[in-house]
Amino acid sequence: MIRAAELIQRKRDGAELAPEEIGELILGYARGEVPDYQLAAFCMAVYFRGLSPRETYALTDAMIRSGDTIDLGGALGRKVVDKHSTGGVGDKTSLAVGPIVAACGVPFGKMSGRGLGHTGGTLDKLESIPGFRIELTLDEFVSQVRDVGLAIIGQTAELVPADKALYGLRDVTATVDQLSLIAASIMSKKIAAGAQAIVLDVKVGDGAFMKTLDDARRLAEAMLSLGEQAGRQVVCLLTDMEQPLGAAVGNALEVREARATVRGEGPPDFTQLVHDACLRLLTLSDLGIDEAEARRRVAEAVASGAAEATWCRWLEAQGGTADEDVLERAPVVRTVESPREGVVTRLGAIAVGNAALHLGAGRQTKSDTIDHAVGVVCLRKRGDGVERGETLAEVHARDDASAAEAVDAVLAAYELGDTPPPERRILIEVVS
Amino acid sequence: MIRAAELIQRKRDGAELAPEEIGELILGYARGEVPDYQLAAFCMAVYFRGLSPRETYALTDAMIRSGDTIDLGGALGRKVVDKHSTGGVGDKTSLAVGPIVAACGVPFGKMSGRGLGHTGGTLDKLESIPGFRIELTLDEFVSQVRDVGLAIIGQTAELVPADKALYGLRDVTATVDQLSLIAASIMSKKIAAGAQAIVLDVKVGDGAFMKTLDDARRLAEAMLSLGEQAGRQVVCLLTDMEQPLGAAVGNALEVREARATVRGEGPPDFTQLVHDACLRLLTLSDLGIDEAEARRRVAEAVASGAAEATWCRWLEAQGGTADEDVLERAPVVRTVESPREGVVTRLGAIAVGNAALHLGAGRQTKSDTIDHAVGVVCLRKRGDGVERGETLAEVHARDDASAAEAVDAVLAAYELGDTPPPERRILIEVVS
Repeated sequence: MIRAAELIQRKRDGAELAPEEIGELILGYARGEVPDYQLAAFCMAVYFRGLSPRETYALTDAMIRSGDTIDLGGALGRKVVDKHSTGGVGDKTSLAVGPIVAACGVPFGKMSGRGLGHTGGTLDKLESIPGFRIELTLDEFVSQVRDVGLAIIGQTAELVPADKALYGLRDVTATVDQLSLIAASIMSKKIAAGAQAIVLDVKVGDGAFMKTLDDARRLAEAMLSLGEQAGRQVVCLLTDMEQPLGAAVGNALEVREARATVRGEGPPDFTQLVHDACLRLLTLSDLGIDEAEARRRVAEAVASGAAEATWCRWLEAQGGTADEDVLERAPVVRTVESPREGVVTRLGAIAVGNAALHLGAGRQTKSDTIDHAVGVVCLRKRGDGVERGETLAEVHARDDASAAEAVDAVLAAYELGDTPPPERRILIEVVS
Repeated sequence: MIRAAELIQRKRDGAELAPEEIGELILGYARGEVPDYQLAAFCMAVYFRGLSPRETYALTDAMIRSGDTIDLGGALGRKVVDKHSTGGVGDKTSLAVGPIVAACGVPFGKMSGRGLGHTGGTLDKLESIPGFRIELTLDEFVSQVRDVGLAIIGQTAELVPADKALYGLRDVTATVDQLSLIAASIMSKKIAAGAQAIVLDVKVGDGAFMKTLDDARRLAEAMLSLGEQAGRQVVCLLTDMEQPLGAAVGNALEVREARATVRGEGPPDFTQLVHDACLRLLTLSDLGIDEAEARRRVAEAVASGAAEATWCRWLEAQGGTADEDVLERAPVVRTVESPREGVVTRLGAIAVGNAALHLGAGRQTKSDTIDHAVGVVCLRKRGDGVERGETLAEVHARDDASAAEAVDAVLAAYELGDTPPPERRILIEVVS
C-alpha cells in the first residue's frame, strides 16, 4: 500500500519511475495486491504527467509479464504477421486483410478486443456470424493459424491480464485517451500474442482517438519504439478517419462489406486501405518479396477468388458458416435522401458513428448488448456528386422510431456544397 | 458509472462542475454507488485542475449532507466555539485551549481526527490518558459540552461519512495535499459538528502541510469563505511550523506539556499560541468582550487554577483520570548533547517529527499502533544559547537501539551557529 502511494506521488510530481517500480505496480495490480483505486489515481497522474519512453516500455513489458506469451513463430516455424487498428467508424479492415494475406501464404494470427465504441470491435463484428467462436484455446489458436493460415480470436485471460484489468479501469476513470497508455496497451497485446511483424493502422481525424496528425505520429512512433525494443518489425500507416471507412457502419453490415472487399467488390477507400495494409504485411513476411511483387500478389489473391475461399475456410474453421444469407438483416431499412443537388463536402465520422450507436450497433456501457443487424450504409462519401432526392445513405434499424431518428442524424452528418472538397487520400503517411 | 466517468473527464479537462454534479458524485460515493476507483481518479484530476470556490463549497456541502449534523448552539442555547489546526510537529494546542476557554465560560465542542503523521492526532494524544473515551454518542457529546463546558471526541460515523471515506482514499492515492480538498475536509467536519465560531490554526513551514505563507493564506481564505457561506464566524491564525511547537513531541509527553501550559508552566512559544487562540475564541463568543478583556480573562483562568480545574473535570467526565502519574513513561530516556557552544539557528520540525515517528509515536500506515510513551522533548529551541555538552533535547524510547538512532536523528535536526537567527514570531498573521 505504502509503496504504491509513494510511486503514485512521485509520478504525480513529475518524476520518472524506474522500470522495476513500474513493474512492481503493474504486477502487484495483476496479482490483486495493488487495488483498483491506486491504479486509477496512477493513471490519472500519468494522464497529466505522461510517461517517458523508458517508463512506457517498462509498462508494456510488465503487462506482458503479467500473463502467458505465445511464440507463434517458434510453433509454426514461420514468420507470423498481425495487423492492428486504433479504431474508427466503419473499421472492418482486419476482417478483409486476414483472408487476403493468408491466401498469399503468410500466416496471420490476431487477438482482438471488444471495444466500447460506436459499433462493436472486431470481435463483435465476428459474432454477428452465427456460430462463430471467438474464444479458442491458445492451442487451438496456434493450430488454426498453422492449418488455415488465419485466426482472429478474443483476448484470452492468460495473455496480458494486467492490460485487460487496466483497460477496464481506464474506461470508467476517464484515463483512456493518454498516448503512452494507449501505446503500451496495444503493443503489450501484440507482442504477447506472438506475431513477429506487425502493421499498425493509426487513424487520424474526427472519428479517431487521434484528432491531429501530430498526435497520430507521436502514437505511431511510441508503438514503433515499443515493438522494436521487443524485437518485432513494425510499420505504422497513418490513415484518414474524417469520414467513416468504406460504406457500412454496423456489425453484420460490415461483415458483408469485408467479404465483398475480399472478392474485389468493396468500396474504393476501404479497398485501397486493405490492399495497402496487405502489401506491407507481405513485404514484412518471410516471403522475401518487394512492394511491387506484394501488390501483384494481393491483387491476384483477390481476383482469383483465393482470398474469398480462405475467408470461407476461416469462418468454418472457427465454427461459423460461409453462407452470407445467415447474417441477420434489420427489419426496417430507410433511405436518407439528398435535399439538394451538389457534392458531398464532408461526412462526419462521429455523427454517423453516433447514429449507429443509437440504433444499437455499439455499446454505451460495458453491459449493453449489441444489435448485430442494425447500422448505417453511407452510399455517398466525400467528393461524390448527388442529385436532389438521390439516396445518400441507408439506415438499417430495429423499428420505425429508431430509423426515423437515425435518418435525421445521418442527414445532419452530411455537408453538401457546390464544389468538390480537396481530395484527401486514405493513406496519409507511413511511419517505419 | 457512465455519469461518474463523464464528470471525472470534465474535471480532468478543466471544466467547472455544477454543485449538483459534485453532490451526485460525493453522495453517490457515500452510498457506495460510485466506487473508490472513480473517486480516486477524480481526486487526482482535482489535484491537477483544482476546484473553483463554487465547487469547493459544493464538495463541503455534499460531505455535510452525507451524514447527520449537530445544532450545538440550539441544543445549548449558547454560542459554542471550536478550534482546529492543520497539524504540525508537537501540536497539542486543542488540549490546552479547550480547558482555558471553558474555564472562561465559553462552551467548547470539538470533533477531532486521528491523522497519519509524525505523532498521533489529538485523539491519539488523548488516548494516552488511561480510560479516556474518545467515542461518545452525539447525545453524550452535547450533554458534556453543556455540563462540563468542554468535550473533544472522535469523528463519529454519523457525521460527514463521505469525508471519512474520502480522506482514507486520498491518503493512499497521493491526493492529500490539495488545497481545496483540505479546506473542504476540514470545514465539512467543523460545520457539521455545530460550532458557531471557529478559530483555524493554519501552520506554515517545514513541519506543516503548507510550506509557504502564500499557500497558507490561500488555504485560510478558502476555509474562511466556506465557513462564511455556511453562516459560521471564522478567524484564521497563520502560525509558525519551522520548528516543533513547544518542547514535547510524542503523545503522553504532549499531554503533560498541555497540562503544564493550562496551569501556566508551558514553554513560551506554545503558551503564546494557546493564549492567542483562546482570546480569539473569547472575542468570537457570546461573552461580548473585546480583545483586551479576553486576554485578561485568559490570563486569569490560567493563574487562578480555574483552567486546570476544568482540565481535570473534563478528563474525568470523559472517563480518564486527572492524575498525571498514570501517563505512561518510556523506559529509556537519553539526552542529546550539544557538540559545541553556540546558539540554535535552526531546529528542523520534520526531522524531529521523523525521529518521533521512528520511535513509535506516530503511524506509518493506518494499521500501525502508536506507542504513547515515546517521543522527543526539545529543551533548546531556535535562538536559545547552549554550552558544549549541555542538553539540547531528550529522547524517550522503548529500547536502547531505537533511542540511539533517535539521538543521532535529533542531533542532526539542530543547526548551531555563533550568532542568533532572526526572531520569528509564533503568530505570523491573522486572516479574518
